[in-house]
Amino acid sequence: MAKQERIVEDIEALRRITQPCACGTQRPSYTPEYRRGVEYVRRRMEAFGLKTREDNAGNLYGLLEGRQPDAPKLISGSHLDSVKCSGAYDGIAGVLCALEAARMIVESGVPLRRPLEVLGTIGEEGTRFGQALIGSQLIEGSWGEEQLDAFHGLEDGLSLRQTMRAYGLPGNVEGVCRRGERVKAFVELHAEQGPVLEDAGLSIGVVENIVAISWMYITVHGMASHPGTIPMSVRRDACVGACRLVCAVTDYARERYDGEATVTAGKMEVFPGNTNCIPSRCDLTLDIRTCSGAYRDDLVRFIREKKAEVERECRVEIEVREGMRQAPTALDAGIQQCIEDSCRKLGYSWRRMNSGAGHDAMIFSRIWPTGMVFVPSRGGLTHHPDEFVPPEELAKGADVLYETFRALDAQSDG
Amino acid sequence: MAKQERIVEDIEALRRITQPCACGTQRPSYTPEYRRGVEYVRRRMEAFGLKTREDNAGNLYGLLEGRQPDAPKLISGSHLDSVKCSGAYDGIAGVLCALEAARMIVESGVPLRRPLEVLGTIGEEGTRFGQALIGSQLIEGSWGEEQLDAFHGLEDGLSLRQTMRAYGLPGNVEGVCRRGERVKAFVELHAEQGPVLEDAGLSIGVVENIVAISWMYITVHGMASHPGTIPMSVRRDACVGACRLVCAVTDYARERYDGEATVTAGKMEVFPGNTNCIPSRCDLTLDIRTCSGAYRDDLVRFIREKKAEVERECRVEIEVREGMRQAPTALDAGIQQCIEDSCRKLGYSWRRMNSGAGHDAMIFSRIWPTGMVFVPSRGGLTHHPDEFVPPEELAKGADVLYETFRALDAQSDG
Repeated sequence: MAKQERIVEDIEALRRITQPCACGTQRPSYTPEYRRGVEYVRRRMEAFGLKTREDNAGNLYGLLEGRQPDAPKLISGSHLDSVKCSGAYDGIAGVLCALEAARMIVESGVPLRRPLEVLGTIGEEGTRFGQALIGSQLIEGSWGEEQLDAFHGLEDGLSLRQTMRAYGLPGNVEGVCRRGERVKAFVELHAEQGPVLEDAGLSIGVVENIVAISWMYITVHGMASHPGTIPMSVRRDACVGACRLVCAVTDYARERYDGEATVTAGKMEVFPGNTNCIPSRCDLTLDIRTCSGAYRDDLVRFIREKKAEVERECRVEIEVREGMRQAPTALDAGIQQCIEDSCRKLGYSWRRMNSGAGHDAMIFSRIWPTGMVFVPSRGGLTHHPDEFVPPEELAKGADVLYETFRALDAQSDG
Repeated sequence: MAKQERIVEDIEALRRITQPCACGTQRPSYTPEYRRGVEYVRRRMEAFGLKTREDNAGNLYGLLEGRQPDAPKLISGSHLDSVKCSGAYDGIAGVLCALEAARMIVESGVPLRRPLEVLGTIGEEGTRFGQALIGSQLIEGSWGEEQLDAFHGLEDGLSLRQTMRAYGLPGNVEGVCRRGERVKAFVELHAEQGPVLEDAGLSIGVVENIVAISWMYITVHGMASHPGTIPMSVRRDACVGACRLVCAVTDYARERYDGEATVTAGKMEVFPGNTNCIPSRCDLTLDIRTCSGAYRDDLVRFIREKKAEVERECRVEIEVREGMRQAPTALDAGIQQCIEDSCRKLGYSWRRMNSGAGHDAMIFSRIWPTGMVFVPSRGGLTHHPDEFVPPEELAKGADVLYETFRALDAQSDG
């Protein structure tokens, strides 16, 4: 069984490797602190005989040789970078639980048939370049040399290529892309980042899908005017129009699709924004997430229907533009079954669920059979210094990875 | 009867006396353009024999002598300054219609018994110092020497005293305050700045009250989180909480108090304001206006009741602070009667109504019997380049002032 002290020791060691920051821990990609984090993980990998390498993108691999070096590989891990003032689990937990599972294999004395690679990706968070999933997209091959010059640091303005060189890498993507390799499975363990498992008192989430994300940009046009001279019934208040739309779509999503879809108005700006002026314009965004194309379409339909209703009721005009639209990702059914069987074998409680956040797994699923394991996040907190996954749940997660690797190792490569 | 061409000629002449601006006209107080505007009005006053003077605050008076120089005076007018990118009627129309009524008296060959002063106040708009009603409050005496040093230009940082000196005034308030003088009535004509008269097809509004204004500062505290991982039913979305409150209070005010009270959310700021983040905080303001203390109290009660409901429903915490609170102003009943009688005599359509905006009349009512006459604003537009009062309605307004002056002139001073 997994040793939770060992996982916690690594979690806490990495938490202490941080840039100076107001609260929590922060280790953005391509910084000296990120380098120190990578070196810590590398030493821990090597202590158990894993052969480590860093690719030209800065992704860290630890290879546990298998009895059949040419058999399709198992790869498991997550990202090693963090947002600002972060907690210590997001991403990191997935690398360290995969490492723990590798240590369990070594300690079992029964090596895998297949090679197992523990992977720590770089640049998963959009913190430094405003672009997320950098390491995984360079491995997957959607991105390459072009992006090294196209992406620039939000703070220092340096290109990704310049940043890589300053970090000590050669400044190219040679050997990074692994498209075409024979890979049996990629499995990512991650903190749920939501309250579902904790609220249900469950230990493991078997991820079926990663949500589709749609962003809608909405502008409500009203008529600025004096707040005291225009009776309520004849005003054209852009802010009231926006509020009605937000309430209506929130209610609809909650009543129809609670747990299945989310709609979030994260941004809302009111113009001219004077206490004593009826607002003439309100800009807002709606972030829609669901794994179901039908739910998504129904939500967009509802927004458009409600838009017309609010236009009439509030005497405003509403522009609706669809921005980013990302397809949902269905994870590999066979791997889901392996994870579920592992939970059953171990006697751990579990449920199938969807991921409302994007992950490296979303990228790797384009080229490899991919699965995801969720462990509970206390209070659903994430991107927050108080982010926490109980040690015993981390250990259960590592146990599930171990059993899943064993099961996948035993499968034929037909 | 009033000559509308003469009023329009003056309106258009003043419209052309403007600072360079993006649209409309602008003549902020104590600027060279304001000086040119004052000189234009002064010449027009003097052309009909009015004796003009500027007080130390920059208010312009044009005196039409009466047959009994010591009889309690009539004073009529409004303000000569404008907001930025303004229309040509707000304030100005009240000065020019009073001037037209004075011209009618001169042309009638039947002088008044009482002295009539046509008044153009300075600094009524808060544009330059962030403080409104400057000229009238110096005349009324609530403000004095202290404010000359306390108020500073929002753009140039100069004190009101420095600004007055640069404008060519002595830089003190000597002789400005008229508290204690025997004044029979102050009557202000003003554009309605709302749609009520136009919508009802009426020419004259007889103002009964100027609304009380209350500002409420509201902060909704939620919990920032990932927009995809927190089911709709368990999130603590500060923006949704704010939207519910705005919708609820808007509906309540509209259903219960349409035409009697207004509630306006003019300012609303959402934090952290990222498309992909559930908002942790939302700050908003509510501007409440009504002439009824009971309605106001009921609206505040409703907001507090709804606050508790939204807190429960949306799992948020809401702070409510009351900011500015201005009492309502009841205008003089006798003057209202005179205005109404004048409309009847002239055959002009009229209604009694309240003013949802503050005016110099609100200040003068503290020391003088005060009345207000509204004329229709096209589309209710104000503080906008397209602000418009039809010429025939301006002429009717001047006729009503003329008849009202005659009626007040005939009253005894018992």
